[in-house]
Amino acid sequence: MMESRAVLSYVLSLDLDRPSLENNTADVERVQQVIKKELGIKNIQINFDLAKRIPYILAGSPDKIKAVVFRNQNTWIVVDIVKPDTNQVFLGIAADIGTTKIAVRVVDLESKKILIEKGFDNPQIEVGPDVLTRIHYAKEKRGLERLSSLLIQGFNVNIAMLCKKIDCKPEDIYLFSGSGNTSMTHLFLGIEPSGIIREPYIPTINIPDTLKSDKLGLKLNPSAVCFLFPNIGSYFGGDLIAGILYSSLNKLKDPSIMVDVGTNAEVVVGCKDWLVACAGAAGPALEGGVSDIGMTAAPGVIDKVCINNDTNHIEFTTIDDRAPVGVCGSGMIDLAAALFLSLKIDIRGKFIKKNCGDKLFEKDGIDYFILVEKKDSGTKENICISQVDLNSLTSSKAAMYTILEVIVCNTAGLNFDDLAKFYVAGTFGSFINPESAISIGMLPDIKRDKFEVLGNSSLGGATQLLVDTAAFDEVDKIRQSITYIELNVNAEFMNMFSGAKFYPHTDKSRFPSVNHLEE
Amino acid sequence: MMESRAVLSYVLSLDLDRPSLENNTADVERVQQVIKKELGIKNIQINFDLAKRIPYILAGSPDKIKAVVFRNQNTWIVVDIVKPDTNQVFLGIAADIGTTKIAVRVVDLESKKILIEKGFDNPQIEVGPDVLTRIHYAKEKRGLERLSSLLIQGFNVNIAMLCKKIDCKPEDIYLFSGSGNTSMTHLFLGIEPSGIIREPYIPTINIPDTLKSDKLGLKLNPSAVCFLFPNIGSYFGGDLIAGILYSSLNKLKDPSIMVDVGTNAEVVVGCKDWLVACAGAAGPALEGGVSDIGMTAAPGVIDKVCINNDTNHIEFTTIDDRAPVGVCGSGMIDLAAALFLSLKIDIRGKFIKKNCGDKLFEKDGIDYFILVEKKDSGTKENICISQVDLNSLTSSKAAMYTILEVIVCNTAGLNFDDLAKFYVAGTFGSFINPESAISIGMLPDIKRDKFEVLGNSSLGGATQLLVDTAAFDEVDKIRQSITYIELNVNAEFMNMFSGAKFYPHTDKSRFPSVNHLEE
Repeated sequence: MMESRAVLSYVLSLDLDRPSLENNTADVERVQQVIKKELGIKNIQINFDLAKRIPYILAGSPDKIKAVVFRNQNTWIVVDIVKPDTNQVFLGIAADIGTTKIAVRVVDLESKKILIEKGFDNPQIEVGPDVLTRIHYAKEKRGLERLSSLLIQGFNVNIAMLCKKIDCKPEDIYLFSGSGNTSMTHLFLGIEPSGIIREPYIPTINIPDTLKSDKLGLKLNPSAVCFLFPNIGSYFGGDLIAGILYSSLNKLKDPSIMVDVGTNAEVVVGCKDWLVACAGAAGPALEGGVSDIGMTAAPGVIDKVCINNDTNHIEFTTIDDRAPVGVCGSGMIDLAAALFLSLKIDIRGKFIKKNCGDKLFEKDGIDYFILVEKKDSGTKENICISQVDLNSLTSSKAAMYTILEVIVCNTAGLNFDDLAKFYVAGTFGSFINPESAISIGMLPDIKRDKFEVLGNSSLGGATQLLVDTAAFDEVDKIRQSITYIELNVNAEFMNMFSGAKFYPHTDKSRFPSVNHLEE
Repeated sequence: MMESRAVLSYVLSLDLDRPSLENNTADVERVQQVIKKELGIKNIQINFDLAKRIPYILAGSPDKIKAVVFRNQNTWIVVDIVKPDTNQVFLGIAADIGTTKIAVRVVDLESKKILIEKGFDNPQIEVGPDVLTRIHYAKEKRGLERLSSLLIQGFNVNIAMLCKKIDCKPEDIYLFSGSGNTSMTHLFLGIEPSGIIREPYIPTINIPDTLKSDKLGLKLNPSAVCFLFPNIGSYFGGDLIAGILYSSLNKLKDPSIMVDVGTNAEVVVGCKDWLVACAGAAGPALEGGVSDIGMTAAPGVIDKVCINNDTNHIEFTTIDDRAPVGVCGSGMIDLAAALFLSLKIDIRGKFIKKNCGDKLFEKDGIDYFILVEKKDSGTKENICISQVDLNSLTSSKAAMYTILEVIVCNTAGLNFDDLAKFYVAGTFGSFINPESAISIGMLPDIKRDKFEVLGNSSLGGATQLLVDTAAFDEVDKIRQSITYIELNVNAEFMNMFSGAKFYPHTDKSRFPSVNHLEE
C-alpha cells in the first residue's frame, strides 16, 4: 500500500537544500521534500503546531536538521524537527498497559538500547480490580475521565521517575508505543468502553490513530506522539498483536503457536501465510483469587513444586525464599502434577485417600490436602489445597487443552506435533513448567525444546515498534491476516472438554511421555 | 492519485449496518466503512475528538446517520457525525481574505445556496494598511499573534452577525474555505511571514493542511474545519488559485487569460493543458492613495468618465450619485482615455495646452487639469488631475500591457487575438471599462465580447470549494500545472515597457480599433 524506503531509525539526519531565488520552495514544503526523499514516499504529514515552529527552527538557514518521524495508518508523520548540533537525546516509551500491572520501558530511539524499565500497579485498581467493574464505572462520563486520568497520571509519575534515574527529561521523549487489551486501550484513550461487555460486544474503536500525546495528558515532549496497538475485537486486544509481532509468528515458515495464559487464554496459531486466533476463559484457578490458597505472585508464594524422588515427599520453593503463604498458578500446576504422578490424585483429579495418608483431612464434607504444616507456614496456619481448588484447576486445564485442540486441530487442521514452536507469553506463562503442564494434560505432549518462554511479549512488541521502522507495516499485516475464531461452547466443544478433564486425558495415547504409574 | 466516487455534497446521508454478533466491527470503523464505501475510497481520517464522541452518537443504534466530510491533501476527513432526525442545517463559510477588504459568505452545504454575504475592512489595517508594515510588525511573536487575532476576531464578529440575520448559529457552520494572498494566508494562520518579503522570498508554507478551525480561534461548530487555498509562492497566493478555479480557465479548450488588476497585477494564461502565471507591480495609480485625487471606491468617488460627443465635454458619474470628491482607478482609466481621445493629452500622455483651454493651470511647474470645479465639488475644492498623476497612470498602464505582452506573447507564444476569453477579476477590475483601457493601451485591442468580468473571483473560488466536491482535486491540479514566471526587469522588458508608455503604443498597428484623431 505504501512504498517506502527502508530507514533504520525514526530519527533522521537530513541535509537541507538552501533556499535561493532558483529554489523558492516554501520552508514547510522544503522540509517535507527532504523527508519524503529520505523515506521514499509521496506524502507526509506535518502537524500545524510544528509547521508554525518551522521558520524559527530554520532561522539562520541550517544545512542539516534532524527529524523525528513516525507512522500513522497510511502515512508518515513528522513529529519534530531540531537543529542537529544540540546534545539532545531522542527517547521513546514502550508500555504494556495491563489490567493489573503496567510495564514501562525507556528506549533510546537512535542507539535502540533499552535504557531502563519498571513495573507498577495499574492505578485504576483503586476503582476496581477487574475490567468489568471499571467499565461499569466508566458509564458515567466523569467515571471514564477519572479512569483515564488515573492511568495517564500513573504513566506521568512513573515516566518522570525513570527519566530522573537516567538523567533525562520527559521532554526528551518523542514517541510512546503502548499495547493493552481492548478495554485498557479504550480506558487509556478515554474512549467509552461499554460496548465491549454488552452483546454484541462491539468496541468503540479497533484502530486508533497515532495521536499527539498531549491530547491524552501525557507529559512528554510537547510534540510527542502516541501509538496504541490496534485491537481485533473486544476479546482480542493490542497486547496480543504486540505479542505476535514480538514472537515473529507471522514470519515463520512452519506453523507455530503462541499462548498467553491468564484468566483468559489467548491463543494464536499460524505462520507467514496465515494466522488463526481465539480467546477463551481458561478458568480462574490459574490466576488465583478464587481458591483459598490461590494467590498472584508475591513474596512467600509457592511458585515451584516437585516430588522428591527419594522421599516421595512434595517439596517447593517460594518467591524470595520467604516462609510460604499460598500458592500461585504455576505452583498449582506443579502441585497437581506432583500429586498426580505420585498417585495422590486419580485420573479424574480426585484425592486418593489411601495414598495421601495423614496429609488429607475432611471438613464439612470437603477433602483438604495439607501442603505446608502450620509450623512451617508464614501464615501460622496449615496451607491446604482442597478438592474444590483441584476441581477448579481441573476445569481450567481442561479448558486450556480444549481451546488448544479446537484451534490447532479442528480449526487449523494440524496435529500438535506439527507445531514448530510453542511460545508461552505473559508474565504468568513464564513461570509455568511445561513438564508439569503436560503431566496434567494442560499443554500437549510435544517435544520439550519446542517450548519457548517469551516473557512480557506485549512489552516486547511495543518496544519493537520503536526500534524497527518496518514494524508498523507488520502490525497492519498481522491485523489483516488474523482470522479470529469465536469459541462457541457447543456440543462438540463440551465433548472435547469432558475428555480433557481427565489427567492427563481420557485418550492416554495423546500423552505418551507422561510416566504415570497405574494404581 | 485518489480514486473517489463522485458525491454531490459534503453532507452525506448514510445507512448504517447494525452491529451484531456476526458483524462486530468496532463503532468507529463501522462509520469509517460506510463513508469509505459512499465515497469509493480506501482511507478516511476521523479526528480523535470525534472518535471519542461516536459511541454517544451511535447510542440507540440508529439506522441512519449524516456525516459531514471534507478533504485534506490526500485523504478525506470526517468532520462530524450527527443523527439525521434533527432539524440541523449544515453551513459553510467562504471568505476572500483581502489585505484591505474581506468578503464573507454563508453557504448552505446541502442546498448549495448562498444565504447571505457581507464585506468588512481587514481589522489588521489598525496595525498598518499594507502587507509590508504588517509583516514587519509580525517579526515580534506578540505582533504576529495580534495580527492573527485581529483577523480571526474580525471573522468571528462578522460571522456571528451574518448568522443572526439568517436565524442560524455559528455552531451550524462546519466548513470554512478561505482564500487570500500569501501574506494574508500566513497571517490568518498565525504563521511567521517574514521570508515572503526578504530575499530569496520564501514563504513559510504554501500548502496548509485542512485544520480544525478551533485551533485558529474561529468560533464555528467545535468540529468545523478550515481550508485555505494553497499559494504558489510569495507573490502568487491562494486568492489567485481560487480565481482560476472560479474562472474554469484550467478546463477551457482554447487558451484564455485571467487578469486580477490591483497594486499588483496577477495574470494567468492557459487552458486545460497548461497554465502560465506571473505577478508584477502594475503601479499604484490604479488603486489610488498615491496621486492627490486617486481614491479607492467610496461614495462620491468618480468611477466612470466619458466624453459627451456633442459638447466634447468630459462627463462623469460618482458612486451613490454623491457630489464628487475624487477619482478611483477605473475613473482614472476612463479619464485618461477621454483626455487622449479628445486630444487633450498626447501620445506620451502629456497635456496638450492648446486643447485644454482654461481647464489647465500650472502651479510650481506642474500642469493641473480641472476635472470638477469648486462649485460642483463635494470637497468645495477643485478636483484636479496633475501631470504627475497622469505620469503615474502611464507607468501603470505600460506595466500592465508589458506584463500581458511578456506572458501572452513572449512566454506562451500566442498573439493576443488567440485568446478565447479575457477574464477580468477582482473588485477593482469589475469597474474597468475595457473600451477605455484599450484606448490608452493598457489592455490589448481584442474583440470586446471576449472580455468578461468575474467580480470577486477569489470569493467565487472559495465558494465553489464548498459546493463542488471535485473542486479540491481541481485546486491540486491547478497548483501542479501552473508554471510561475518571475518577471525579471531585464533589457528586453524595459524595451517593451518603453513602447507601452505611449498612448496607446508606439506600435499603433496593435490598436487598430482605437479611433485616435491625429493632432
